[in-house]
Amino acid sequence: MQTDALLQQIAFIKEIDKLKYILRRTKLFNSDRHENDAEHSWHLAMMTLILAEHSDQPVDILKVLKMVLIHDIVEIDAGDTFIYDTVKNHTNTDEELLAAKRIFGLLPEKQAKEFIAIWKEFEEGVTNEARFAKTMDRLEPLLQNASNNGGTWTEFNVPYEKVYAKKKAIKEGSAAIWEYAENLINENVEKGILKKQGSSS
Amino acid sequence: MQTDALLQQIAFIKEIDKLKYILRRTKLFNSDRHENDAEHSWHLAMMTLILAEHSDQPVDILKVLKMVLIHDIVEIDAGDTFIYDTVKNHTNTDEELLAAKRIFGLLPEKQAKEFIAIWKEFEEGVTNEARFAKTMDRLEPLLQNASNNGGTWTEFNVPYEKVYAKKKAIKEGSAAIWEYAENLINENVEKGILKKQGSSS
Repeated sequence: MQTDALLQQIAFIKEIDKLKYILRRTKLFNSDRHENDAEHSWHLAMMTLILAEHSDQPVDILKVLKMVLIHDIVEIDAGDTFIYDTVKNHTNTDEELLAAKRIFGLLPEKQAKEFIAIWKEFEEGVTNEARFAKTMDRLEPLLQNASNNGGTWTEFNVPYEKVYAKKKAIKEGSAAIWEYAENLINENVEKGILKKQGSSS
Repeated sequence: MQTDALLQQIAFIKEIDKLKYILRRTKLFNSDRHENDAEHSWHLAMMTLILAEHSDQPVDILKVLKMVLIHDIVEIDAGDTFIYDTVKNHTNTDEELLAAKRIFGLLPEKQAKEFIAIWKEFEEGVTNEARFAKTMDRLEPLLQNASNNGGTWTEFNVPYEKVYAKKKAIKEGSAAIWEYAENLINENVEKGILKKQGSSS
C-alpha cells in the first residue's frame, strides 16, 4: 500500500524540477552560458562539503547542505532577483514567502514546516549555519565573475563599492575565505575590471 | 596568509564546474531538454533529504548526500555511459577510477582520500548508504521517463525486462519506494509504453 506521504513527496520532487529552468545572471566558469539555479545549488553543496573546515564557528554540515540545496526553490514562483538590482530588494520578499508556503506545502506537513523554517533561517542569516551558507552563496559568483573577465560586474556596470558591500557577507562565515575573496576583489580592481566609483576610467 | 589547502580546494571547485556540461540521455520532467549531471546530482540530493525516511535500514544522511553529490564527477573525464548501453559496462570502469584519482586528487590529500573512498563505496553498492543512494539514482530517471511518454525506453527500444532488471536495485534501499516504482513500471506496460520482449506490438 502506497502511503499518502510518499505520493506527496513524489509530487514535490516533480515540482522542483522547474528550478533547472531558472537562469541566474551569472555565467558558468570561463563561459558565456548562464547558470541555472539547480546547478548553482549543487555547486554550493559541493563547496560546503569541501570548505566547511574553514568556517569560523562550528557548523552542522547537514543543516548547511539543506540550506544551500533549497535556498533558491522559492524562485520557481518568485523568479531570480539580481543581487545588484537597484529597484527590487534581493531577499525575503513577501512573494518569496508565499512561494515557500506553496512549494514546500506540497510535502507532508512535518517536512513542509521543517523546510520552510530552514529557508527562513537561511534568509535571516543569523545562525552559524546560515552565515556559512551565505558565505558559499556569495563566493561562487565571485569566482565565476573573476573567471569571466568581470562577468556581471562588467555587464551591468557594478562598481567596486557595491561588490565589496555584498561580498563582505563572506567574512561573517569565514575569515580565511574572506581573505581569499578580498584578495581576488582587489586583483580585479588592479586589473581595471572592477572600477571604483568616481574613478576616471 | 592563504593556506595551500584553500587554494587546492578552489581549484577543485572550479574543475567540477565541468559537470554542468555532461549531458545524460534522460530528459527533464515533461521535457525535451536533456538533463546534465550537475542538475541530476542536485535532484538526487533533494530526493535524499525528502525520501530518507523510507530507507529500510538506518542511513547516515550526510554520507548519502556526499555520495549522490559526487557520484558522477568522474564523468568529467570518463563521460556518461548510458545505463542500457549494450556494449560498454555502465559502472566502475578503469577509466572512472583514473578520473576519480585525477579530479579528487586536486583536493588536499585527506579530502581526496575521503571522496575517493565514498565514490568507491557508492559504486560497490553494499553499505546501507550506497544502497539508498542507488535507490535515488534509479528512481529519478524512472520518474522522468514515465513523465516523458517512455523517454529513453522508447527512444532506444529498451524492453520491460531490461528496465525491470536495472530498476529492481531500488528494492535494495526501500521496499516502499520499490512498491511505488514497480507500480509505475507496470502502468507503463499497461499503457503500451514499455514493451515486453517477444510481445507482438
